[in-house]
Amino acid sequence: MTDTFVVVGGDAAGMSAASKAKRADPELDVVVFEKGEWVSYAACGMPYYVKGEIESLDDLVQVTPEEFRTERDIDLRTNHEVVAIDPEARTVTVAANGDRFEQSYDSLLVATGARAIEPPFDGIDLDGVFTIHSMDSAAAIHEYVESERPETAAIVGGGYVGIEMAEALDARGLDVHTFEMLPHVLQPFGESVATVVEDHLREKGVSLHLDTTVSGFAGEDRVEAVRLETETVSADVVVVGVGVAPNVALAEEAGIELGETGAIATDEYGRTNYDTVYAAGDCAESTDVVTGEPTHVPLALTANRAGRAIGQTVTGTPTEVGTIAGTAIVKAFDLGAARTGIVDESAAREAGFDPVSVEITDAARAHYYPGATDLTVTLVGDSETGRVLGASVVGREGAKRIDTVATALHAGMTVEEVADLDLAYAPPFSPVWDPIATAAKVLAGKL
Amino acid sequence: MTDTFVVVGGDAAGMSAASKAKRADPELDVVVFEKGEWVSYAACGMPYYVKGEIESLDDLVQVTPEEFRTERDIDLRTNHEVVAIDPEARTVTVAANGDRFEQSYDSLLVATGARAIEPPFDGIDLDGVFTIHSMDSAAAIHEYVESERPETAAIVGGGYVGIEMAEALDARGLDVHTFEMLPHVLQPFGESVATVVEDHLREKGVSLHLDTTVSGFAGEDRVEAVRLETETVSADVVVVGVGVAPNVALAEEAGIELGETGAIATDEYGRTNYDTVYAAGDCAESTDVVTGEPTHVPLALTANRAGRAIGQTVTGTPTEVGTIAGTAIVKAFDLGAARTGIVDESAAREAGFDPVSVEITDAARAHYYPGATDLTVTLVGDSETGRVLGASVVGREGAKRIDTVATALHAGMTVEEVADLDLAYAPPFSPVWDPIATAAKVLAGKL
Repeated sequence: MTDTFVVVGGDAAGMSAASKAKRADPELDVVVFEKGEWVSYAACGMPYYVKGEIESLDDLVQVTPEEFRTERDIDLRTNHEVVAIDPEARTVTVAANGDRFEQSYDSLLVATGARAIEPPFDGIDLDGVFTIHSMDSAAAIHEYVESERPETAAIVGGGYVGIEMAEALDARGLDVHTFEMLPHVLQPFGESVATVVEDHLREKGVSLHLDTTVSGFAGEDRVEAVRLETETVSADVVVVGVGVAPNVALAEEAGIELGETGAIATDEYGRTNYDTVYAAGDCAESTDVVTGEPTHVPLALTANRAGRAIGQTVTGTPTEVGTIAGTAIVKAFDLGAARTGIVDESAAREAGFDPVSVEITDAARAHYYPGATDLTVTLVGDSETGRVLGASVVGREGAKRIDTVATALHAGMTVEEVADLDLAYAPPFSPVWDPIATAAKVLAGKL
Repeated sequence: MTDTFVVVGGDAAGMSAASKAKRADPELDVVVFEKGEWVSYAACGMPYYVKGEIESLDDLVQVTPEEFRTERDIDLRTNHEVVAIDPEARTVTVAANGDRFEQSYDSLLVATGARAIEPPFDGIDLDGVFTIHSMDSAAAIHEYVESERPETAAIVGGGYVGIEMAEALDARGLDVHTFEMLPHVLQPFGESVATVVEDHLREKGVSLHLDTTVSGFAGEDRVEAVRLETETVSADVVVVGVGVAPNVALAEEAGIELGETGAIATDEYGRTNYDTVYAAGDCAESTDVVTGEPTHVPLALTANRAGRAIGQTVTGTPTEVGTIAGTAIVKAFDLGAARTGIVDESAAREAGFDPVSVEITDAARAHYYPGATDLTVTLVGDSETGRVLGASVVGREGAKRIDTVATALHAGMTVEEVADLDLAYAPPFSPVWDPIATAAKVLAGKL
């Protein structure tokens, strides 16, 4: 049990932990320091705000600061930045309103999140060049598109944020160019998803520049072009989405250990090397359900789950933060793409498995049912143990079926067991054998 | 190993077994006797043929008789009825073309299916009264609707076939009345699904007569009305869909044992009390994954799975037919409804569990995402072991998410484990916590 629970960072992990802890122990003092204005917002919704499908950024706020304070009785301080942690003294130093003060804690959660990586591109400070990782940057892009009426957009990075922003800016009527350093977009989703998505992006009019390194941006005050090695491509607005890096400086300075991934190392309860200091969300490592190894997958659900567990642990009910499968899903125009576990055979081999994979394409509904479209499933299994290792799916409908494989990964199921699942069938929803089960049947024959 | 594998019945279980066996052992003689014309057809597609969304019944045929014969080298004999089995002599007696002959076998699969129950209603033989269970009856209803232009339809039975036929006939412009003896439609889906579906059916203009016993049909040659206890309701066409009964007479006469459900009793390999006689599909029992007890759930996937397994077993690779969760899904106009495992608390108690259930309603996508609609999830757990026992879902989208629970049932997962699953999240596809996980979180708090 604890008397004062201090949380650094007021987004998914921090506010989940604060809320859970206060609910579990109403006597507990729960203090949250957030350096910005916004708390508990759905960052993943930002592309749809830029697209114009969501009217106001306020719609992305799940619980307002006022609600946290009055309804949940959490001492939430926005515009308060924690600038130092002293784990021995169990205090944090807080800067606010030009002043500094100390706050002591019994338990501390570091939930400082991640920031968009800004490569040292020439011209990254030009007007019209944005990253998208905070509500403020989403507001800035939205404002720029509305006021400056750019005609051509360059998206640097073909990850999920890049793909979502391509869709958003295309919907705004911009001519979109996407630049990806690697041979394919959506690298963590594997090649079979990437090729389907790439064809679809091109169909939709997106100009894909794969295997292409951006060296900088050109323009006087405002961006006018993207510089590549041998040419330049005009662009009135640029969105850089090349990934995120965990915010660990504060923790590192306090002697909190980082793991190999560069994020904060934690045990199964989300605890750091200091007994009373926890870390969760985009700044912390998690444990991979397939390999059992530390991994850094900065996604919203991971943050929420870990926050909730830590909120229980600090109030006397030790709760594991849980393992993650790295399950992810992304909308790319009319397609849905999803992945879970280990999709890449070489990554599976590195983790000590002997992987075999299959790719099948089947209708997402009964083939004769009106509107049936194809779902492509890639399933990876281990030939030694027969275990399922991971999967990806892509299609116009049915991408959420990745959840069947995610569940199977958490249960440690074999490929045969997945082939034998009693999944839901009726013509408007699935063929008799769901494409996931079909992939498992085919893979079982190869293991 | 076996030299001649005889299959009685050419639908899902029979043709799956025949195909798998022949593929596994091309030297094997595989003989299938089917008393009708049609083989390997998607019976579940029939309502959509009546609705007019599928042009021809031929579209529902997955593999034609000719393809089975030439491409799969199966000795398929349509219009051949097996009239007796002699398990001691290992022969079957076949009637065809007014003649009879004997066929010996090394292994036999009884896959005689089920038939629509026809209650002894007065007037059931009137023109315009149909059951729907065979391609011929689907063709007959279709023909009747096109040629006789009925204006009012009575559906007797609010099970999934009844609901699908209500949608089909409504789409044809008929005024539809549905009669259900029980207080709710879709009894196996539980009350929380039923009430949502009933509201929707009424919204769509279907007249629901619940808790209502039909005593017969009135009319001269053609049906004109449905007789209830105290009134009659006009109807130009009647579809009776009050369930199916397994076709077991042939097996019973041969001394093949039935189980308590009235279907053929089988072991984990689909074997009957005779070593060389198997049974699968709608005529046979299966094993429930939750209770471990025999059950009779005549659904397409169960038949396909068991047939495939038996095809492997008779060719020397003993393969269990697998357990079933009774997973089912049905489209009711704009809604999807699905169920798996034990949904009903009293059924759970009868099976020896101490059930607790919760019902939650949440958006199927992020609440702020355009077009987000509600999904209602009912989740049942056992308070002694924490195990998940079953679930139902209903909503305009997302009904296939029942597969997450079906997979959890096969894995024997606890409610806590389901709450902790790393399921796929992005605003267009789900809230951060998928409604299945939300239901599990709430239920975990009550166990």
